[in-house]
Amino acid sequence: MHTIEGMLEAYPKDLGDVDRGKLAACIQACYECSQTCTACADACLSEDMVAELVKCVRTNLDCADICATTGAVLSRHTGYDANVTRAVLEACAQACKACGDECERHASMHEHCKVCAESCRRCEQACRDLLGALG
Amino acid sequence: MHTIEGMLEAYPKDLGDVDRGKLAACIQACYECSQTCTACADACLSEDMVAELVKCVRTNLDCADICATTGAVLSRHTGYDANVTRAVLEACAQACKACGDECERHASMHEHCKVCAESCRRCEQACRDLLGALG
Amino acid sequence: MHTIEGMLEAYPKDLGDVDRGKLAACIQACYECSQTCTACADACLSEDMVAELVKCVRTNLDCADICATTGAVLSRHTGYDANVTRAVLEACAQACKACGDECERHASMHEHCKVCAESCRRCEQACRDLLGALG
Amino acid sequence: MHTIEGMLEAYPKDLGDVDRGKLAACIQACYECSQTCTACADACLSEDMVAELVKCVRTNLDCADICATTGAVLSRHTGYDANVTRAVLEACAQACKACGDECERHASMHEHCKVCAESCRRCEQACRDLLGALG
Repeated sequence: MHTIEGMLEAYPKDLGDVDRGKLAACIQACYECSQTCTACADACLSEDMVAELVKCVRTNLDCADICATTGAVLSRHTGYDANVTRAVLEACAQACKACGDECERHASMHEHCKVCAESCRRCEQACRDLLGALG
Repeated sequence: MHTIEGMLEAYPKDLGDVDRGKLAACIQACYECSQTCTACADACLSEDMVAELVKCVRTNLDCADICATTGAVLSRHTGYDANVTRAVLEACAQACKACGDECERHASMHEHCKVCAESCRRCEQACRDLLGALG
Repeated sequence: MHTIEGMLEAYPKDLGDVDRGKLAACIQACYECSQTCTACADACLSEDMVAELVKCVRTNLDCADICATTGAVLSRHTGYDANVTRAVLEACAQACKACGDECERHASMHEHCKVCAESCRRCEQACRDLLGALG
Repeated sequence: MHTIEGMLEAYPKDLGDVDRGKLAACIQACYECSQTCTACADACLSEDMVAELVKCVRTNLDCADICATTGAVLSRHTGYDANVTRAVLEACAQACKACGDECERHASMHEHCKVCAESCRRCEQACRDLLGALG
């Protein structure tokens, strides 16, 4: 979403010494992963073997919610609070790891879990990269 | 987000006779507009003339919430309910119109409102296109 | 949640000629229904017969998202837009009806669907009452 | 919301050795705080001195999102993941602390900030109580 960079550039005040590339990448990864997890939960519901996928659905739903919230928090810069940002990024990395691990177990059998596992890995990495850049 | 198409393709059951291109475009527009409106609300808060932008902030917040919900509803296909989908798309088009109109009033002065107004217009159009395709 | 009334009373400007009791009741019903639907989706996942409940899960997830967004929109009064409010309330009533109908089909067998159906009925009614009061 | 306890009782499988009272209290506090913060952000926007309240609005918006996500995660029990739950509770406690501190600074002047600060304090405490009970 090229609008993410556009909105960062249009922010009227100083963004501070944040790594703008890593911030934009993490926002993008959060919104993408939220959508992918929402779709994967629904695709799991539609599998004949849904009874074996209920943990996957639940992990997807948590990850979708946490990524959406993280993407929103990162889209705000006014009155920045490093402690809140860091705690949210830690929670997001944790949720993406749990969901990536769970989806990976079904990736060879379900294409939606494969796409979703990759999305979770990218988002986990983007969160850790941004956490590292925050110092 | 190329994952949107990937997840539509990976859906294990029949998607019905929905126009897959319009559906993917609308999901994409909803997530993008939700992020843009969240960022625009925050950018408005950071303007010296914030007192003149409070209606814009509020409209942004509503539009961000409604687009996020619409994007999630459209990402689900299991147990499809046309009445719910239609009502959500109508609400989303309405919110995008209100927010697009409001941001457009400040577009010449604030770049973030310009980017946001364009995002709202795209999303409103994508909702109306999908509504038309639903019949 | 007694804080809902407390926040309505603390709003610094005029709330307009809205029926404050119906507004507070609708906000309360939306937050309650969002929580109940989230919990019902999860309880369905935990049933041995989950394969027969996948439409119920999906309807629950939509209703949870739409109720959360409606509760948030109704909690804002600055820069009020009657068209957006009305469209969101219509979508919420529609989602609550769909979810109430679906949960009611399983209410005799699953207590969580019984509790959830009642929550959906209350929220649908609260949305319609507020829509009526908006004129 | 008495439905929270009703849904916990109706959960079809074992809830594990969680303290059910603290869990219900924390879910309740999260939904309440999410609503209160959403309303406080809007009330701040309506104050003549909004320019001095922009950090408060932003903190409110973050806290509203994080509380909503935490309330949803806690409402799910299927496929429980202690690491995700703990990380989300930590983030929620952090956001509630930041928002409680910020609102408290304006509590003597703005009744909505007073109500909101109390709601944030209750939610922070409920998160910490539940974290303690998780061991």
